[in-house]
Amino acid sequence: MQTTIKVNGMSCGHCVAAVTKALENVPGVETAQVSLENGEAVVTGEANSDELVRAVKEEGYEAQLQ
Amino acid sequence: MQTTIKVNGMSCGHCVAAVTKALENVPGVETAQVSLENGEAVVTGEANSDELVRAVKEEGYEAQLQ
Repeated sequence: MQTTIKVNGMSCGHCVAAVTKALENVPGVETAQVSLENGEAVVTGEANSDELVRAVKEEGYEAQLQ
Repeated sequence: MQTTIKVNGMSCGHCVAAVTKALENVPGVETAQVSLENGEAVVTGEANSDELVRAVKEEGYEAQLQ
């Protein structure tokens, strides 16, 4: 399963790293690919999509399912 | 002794944290106050100013003594 999340507010590689780590820590996530240029994260695995969105928001970014 | 370094390229709080940590790790540094808004770092202690500039550059930012 692949989930794409729109992420607003990332400004640099540190932000990408923080969002990636937050997503990887959500139970069920296999991979998380975060793009600064596209402002989105593509996650694979069986994670709950609401939990993915919440994890990104808790890092301080706007997030919504795409 | 207080040294002020102009830092260009910081975009978010993660950048501020990275620059602060890099400066605090330079021998002789007592305190490092980094401002995102002003694009500068104010360092106290007896650190070598060239080493301070180098530490910031190694984090990926433009830096010069002010």
